Amino acid sequence: MRSVGIIGASGYTGGELLRLLINHPDAEVKIATSRENAGEPVYRLHPHLRKLTDIKFVEPDLEKVASECEFAFLALPHGSSAPVAKRLLEAGVRVIDLSADFRLKKEDYPKWYGWEHPFPDLLDRAVYGLPELHRDEIRGASLVANPGCIATASILSLAPCIRTGAVEKNRVVVDAKIGSSGAGASVSIASHHPEHSGLVRPYKPSMHRHTAEIEQELSRLGSGEVKVAMTPHAVDMVRGIMATGHSFLTREVTNQELWKIYREMYQKEPFVRIVKDQRGLHMLPDPKNVVGSNFCDVGFELDPHTNRMITFGAIDNLIKGAAGQAIQNFNIMIGVDERTGIDQAGVRPI
Amino acid sequence: MRSVGIIGASGYTGGELLRLLINHPDAEVKIATSRENAGEPVYRLHPHLRKLTDIKFVEPDLEKVASECEFAFLALPHGSSAPVAKRLLEAGVRVIDLSADFRLKKEDYPKWYGWEHPFPDLLDRAVYGLPELHRDEIRGASLVANPGCIATASILSLAPCIRTGAVEKNRVVVDAKIGSSGAGASVSIASHHPEHSGLVRPYKPSMHRHTAEIEQELSRLGSGEVKVAMTPHAVDMVRGIMATGHSFLTREVTNQELWKIYREMYQKEPFVRIVKDQRGLHMLPDPKNVVGSNFCDVGFELDPHTNRMITFGAIDNLIKGAAGQAIQNFNIMIGVDERTGIDQAGVRPI
Amino acid sequence: MRSVGIIGASGYTGGELLRLLINHPDAEVKIATSRENAGEPVYRLHPHLRKLTDIKFVEPDLEKVASECEFAFLALPHGSSAPVAKRLLEAGVRVIDLSADFRLKKEDYPKWYGWEHPFPDLLDRAVYGLPELHRDEIRGASLVANPGCIATASILSLAPCIRTGAVEKNRVVVDAKIGSSGAGASVSIASHHPEHSGLVRPYKPSMHRHTAEIEQELSRLGSGEVKVAMTPHAVDMVRGIMATGHSFLTREVTNQELWKIYREMYQKEPFVRIVKDQRGLHMLPDPKNVVGSNFCDVGFELDPHTNRMITFGAIDNLIKGAAGQAIQNFNIMIGVDERTGIDQAGVRPI
Amino acid sequence: MRSVGIIGASGYTGGELLRLLINHPDAEVKIATSRENAGEPVYRLHPHLRKLTDIKFVEPDLEKVASECEFAFLALPHGSSAPVAKRLLEAGVRVIDLSADFRLKKEDYPKWYGWEHPFPDLLDRAVYGLPELHRDEIRGASLVANPGCIATASILSLAPCIRTGAVEKNRVVVDAKIGSSGAGASVSIASHHPEHSGLVRPYKPSMHRHTAEIEQELSRLGSGEVKVAMTPHAVDMVRGIMATGHSFLTREVTNQELWKIYREMYQKEPFVRIVKDQRGLHMLPDPKNVVGSNFCDVGFELDPHTNRMITFGAIDNLIKGAAGQAIQNFNIMIGVDERTGIDQAGVRPI
Repeated sequence: MRSVGIIGASGYTGGELLRLLINHPDAEVKIATSRENAGEPVYRLHPHLRKLTDIKFVEPDLEKVASECEFAFLALPHGSSAPVAKRLLEAGVRVIDLSADFRLKKEDYPKWYGWEHPFPDLLDRAVYGLPELHRDEIRGASLVANPGCIATASILSLAPCIRTGAVEKNRVVVDAKIGSSGAGASVSIASHHPEHSGLVRPYKPSMHRHTAEIEQELSRLGSGEVKVAMTPHAVDMVRGIMATGHSFLTREVTNQELWKIYREMYQKEPFVRIVKDQRGLHMLPDPKNVVGSNFCDVGFELDPHTNRMITFGAIDNLIKGAAGQAIQNFNIMIGVDERTGIDQAGVRPI
Repeated sequence: MRSVGIIGASGYTGGELLRLLINHPDAEVKIATSRENAGEPVYRLHPHLRKLTDIKFVEPDLEKVASECEFAFLALPHGSSAPVAKRLLEAGVRVIDLSADFRLKKEDYPKWYGWEHPFPDLLDRAVYGLPELHRDEIRGASLVANPGCIATASILSLAPCIRTGAVEKNRVVVDAKIGSSGAGASVSIASHHPEHSGLVRPYKPSMHRHTAEIEQELSRLGSGEVKVAMTPHAVDMVRGIMATGHSFLTREVTNQELWKIYREMYQKEPFVRIVKDQRGLHMLPDPKNVVGSNFCDVGFELDPHTNRMITFGAIDNLIKGAAGQAIQNFNIMIGVDERTGIDQAGVRPI
Repeated sequence: MRSVGIIGASGYTGGELLRLLINHPDAEVKIATSRENAGEPVYRLHPHLRKLTDIKFVEPDLEKVASECEFAFLALPHGSSAPVAKRLLEAGVRVIDLSADFRLKKEDYPKWYGWEHPFPDLLDRAVYGLPELHRDEIRGASLVANPGCIATASILSLAPCIRTGAVEKNRVVVDAKIGSSGAGASVSIASHHPEHSGLVRPYKPSMHRHTAEIEQELSRLGSGEVKVAMTPHAVDMVRGIMATGHSFLTREVTNQELWKIYREMYQKEPFVRIVKDQRGLHMLPDPKNVVGSNFCDVGFELDPHTNRMITFGAIDNLIKGAAGQAIQNFNIMIGVDERTGIDQAGVRPI
Repeated sequence: MRSVGIIGASGYTGGELLRLLINHPDAEVKIATSRENAGEPVYRLHPHLRKLTDIKFVEPDLEKVASECEFAFLALPHGSSAPVAKRLLEAGVRVIDLSADFRLKKEDYPKWYGWEHPFPDLLDRAVYGLPELHRDEIRGASLVANPGCIATASILSLAPCIRTGAVEKNRVVVDAKIGSSGAGASVSIASHHPEHSGLVRPYKPSMHRHTAEIEQELSRLGSGEVKVAMTPHAVDMVRGIMATGHSFLTREVTNQELWKIYREMYQKEPFVRIVKDQRGLHMLPDPKNVVGSNFCDVGFELDPHTNRMITFGAIDNLIKGAAGQAIQNFNIMIGVDERTGIDQAGVRPI
């Protein structure tokens, strides 16, 4: 049983960490912080947890975290996470950071985030926490940078495509569709229900920050740099991300070849499912079919008309795109079955 | 480990039974029937179960069920279930029937369902499967009639109100709001997405069949018959039922008195939560907060202006209103902790 | 052509007033105020009006309104409206106030709104702007108090029921379902999309302020005071209100008798439709069928089982529940056909 | 006043034609056919039209149409429309066909629709009814082929992009998001509410039929053939289409140059709005902002990172994507102001 702390437990990601960790057989939540809600039972903000836990929010006190927790999950805003991670690491706490503060290389922060990274040395210790690509490094890591949600769906669905070596790498289009929970629990006019019902609203259509992660990880998979043309759209769902990839082929590719690569990469992966059926309503990935689970459903289709490979990656942004993946990383770090505590099926229909 | 069969596994309730039973430590699903989909893996219709089970739908063959299963869950249409239950019971299978075929007394079927019950003797053996009111009888039952979804939310929220003995029993209003999954997986114009988005459509505003169950169970709780004025409305959600009760007081009642009765009835109940807070957004029950779980959230408010007690009962219609409650009954029947396999928190926000 | 001003034009009601008035053949919008957005074209907040009008928001300047406008529509928060109305009335402007500031009698404000009314003399001049009940008084009024949205749906659907003289007047239940736009354009956690999707959340279940209006108007219709037991619920739609009434009969009533009363009251009303069909999907009112229009659909059903009359009233809260009804009042005040500028059919399906 | 018939008036497009034409000052609906609903008032299926029209559905009788109508709007399934159009044209009726039966050239039907066109001579008479590109031809046409909904949004948003001559024409990606009403009023499991809520489901991800129209029209705009890589997704809205285009530049292009081209093409167009703002929530097109109107909102963004031009086109699929555009064509054919009867603003928020 490992003692864990959740730093920033009042938001949606914090809520998911709580929901999953209170039933995790190898974790005990010692601390769940929320400055604004200190003293309140967690069910005040996470009413689905009523009668399931007695945990109360406490003020964030890093000394206390350091003294009581072996592991800390940081669910803090981008930019706020780095100094917290630093202090906890210095105290020997292993950190799983759900912000973007440790995902990129030093030189990428000014371009994509607009600031110099304050602790470049920590970046060298950080491991990009996508188990399907970095499992071995995660195992011994003291600092894991949990991937972004759009990035997770994009990388996992496109990785086999890039592995073929048969696509134009400088123009991989990712057209993403995202649910409202991705923007967090803080109110804004963009997430006001009358404004967010029945919409398809482009959001940061070029230069979205997750682009950097996607390019970083896809470029590692083959020879040469991958450039990603990513455009997200807010659509009317609460949870879920669909990353639709449009890649152009440089040589002929068959379905058989693609099946082979997808299988090689994902057949043994506990949380990636290849969805490419010949019949039924569910022939390709749809976030609706993974909501409530840690799965990433990936699929593909060849378009002979335009010499194109279309890829699909669907996740629950709060689970495989955040809290679930963080716990998957935690499981790897402590050496238990990767599925421990996160093996729920999705809840469907919903 | 008990061997179980799911008769009628292609619908939404069947899907929930599958989802919950494949992870149940004391159950092994031996048979999942679907005439139309025999031979197909269950993930063809229940795509969230992909990679989680190898079960395939099979033709309904009651001899096979009888020879392989100790327990059978019947998720069949009203009227079709009774003969199946009869055959399985004769073969010694313990039956949990999710249809309405065994919920009422013999004399109520003509009035509410329009037919004479074909096996009135079986009605005597049937136990109404609401654990909070019938736990002891369920334990030894061979035939459990799983309650209707609106009935579950209505009975559990109103039971303490009736127990006060302080309300006019002949005019208990239940104004219910129901999600689209309650009407099942078969298509109809009423559930066509363009027709079912953003609606508030009254459905069978008087003489709805669940009224009979509610009256039967509430009348057992106090002296004399309870008459229920129930009107359901379809609203835009997939899962969830909210039963709002409006009861008029015959004497003064205080919040303290009500709290006492609710606590007495439900404090030890694993799946009923009293929701009546003084602050926060979640001061009263809302189906949104139970979706994905087996909880029934109940709450109340006194209205001095009209001498009224308002009650609220919220459930996930496919779980506490169907599959989850069926497994709760199963757990009682086999003598394990009632929460086994159904202790998930809801998934929120969703 | 009458010159009109919209005071408070940045909210949803303001947007509807703009949309409807820019095409009104007898109105010219001279002023549309918004302190926060002064100088911006109205399409910045109301993007559906782009290319349809050049109007820009201006600072609220009552002298300017008084000098340029014959009519003013006040779409201001409760409590802020009264002093504005006073100043404009003194300058001879005819005022249609969409807040609650002039809807009740002097003595009701402390009880329902918690404050003494600052201008009780103005209350005597104010006419409750429900044309179906107050058409003649509206005609010559200088100050019209536009009804609340839940009140409009409740009063219009229940008025014929009360007219029968056959219901228990002290226990008229109104169970209301409301869309998110009713809470306005200002953000709040209650209207945050992740919190407002798929919900059924009770809101102010007793002592809701609209109760006062409903009782005031229904009590005028028959002998003696009507008491209303009203409980609203937020449901997942943007526009729309459904007011479901549950009234208990004091004598036998037939469908024929009810039809007769509904027809007498509403047959000639341009914006009330009686919806009570024998077949089809749309046998009773549903807000979905009035969205985008100024209609109030009303219907009823008798429940012999509990001696109950069920009533239904459905409106678009921003049109018949606010801006459309305000323009209907304006049309009466200027003596043109009541349907002028607001005769659009609803937009369906949506 | 022109006499018009609506052939196939029971579906959603038929409902929109009815809604718009009953208020059109230059049209009189003489006939609205529906085999299944003959004899019923149109409000039985289109409840928003209650009290607004006395029209009843009649059996489709082409002789009667020919004798009573100058114009016929055909809202029939693909393949059923062609023979009806032929008969009516022979009788001198001018036909606006909302199916795909006359949109393409003869040689394209086998490839995209799988059948030889039965009346290739009629194809020569047919004009593609996109006013912004074919206004002059429409004026005198006897047979107008109303464009597909995805095609309308795609062509209008991409036309200026193609006009630049600065994009790679053989790899224009269109990632479309469509609402449920696009699949029509007939029930199917794909549109079943529990299956269609909160989804992002790829639909016919390659070789979608609308591709043919888009390529045909875009190829007319510049030198050489355009190839379109189109993939639609069903998302959770009832009305609306968003066509997101991803095009790669062959030379440097500036925002100024693009503004110039968009303005040249659309500044005077009554139903195209360029949406590209610097601030506010509505900086780019969103179908939410056009629902209920005949507008197509178009916008663009340059992505220097991948040398990409992103385009956005948003419409209400039932109006600018079907009925509204058909009436726009009708207005051109009869020589009245193009906006007649279809100049409503969208209804927002909704």
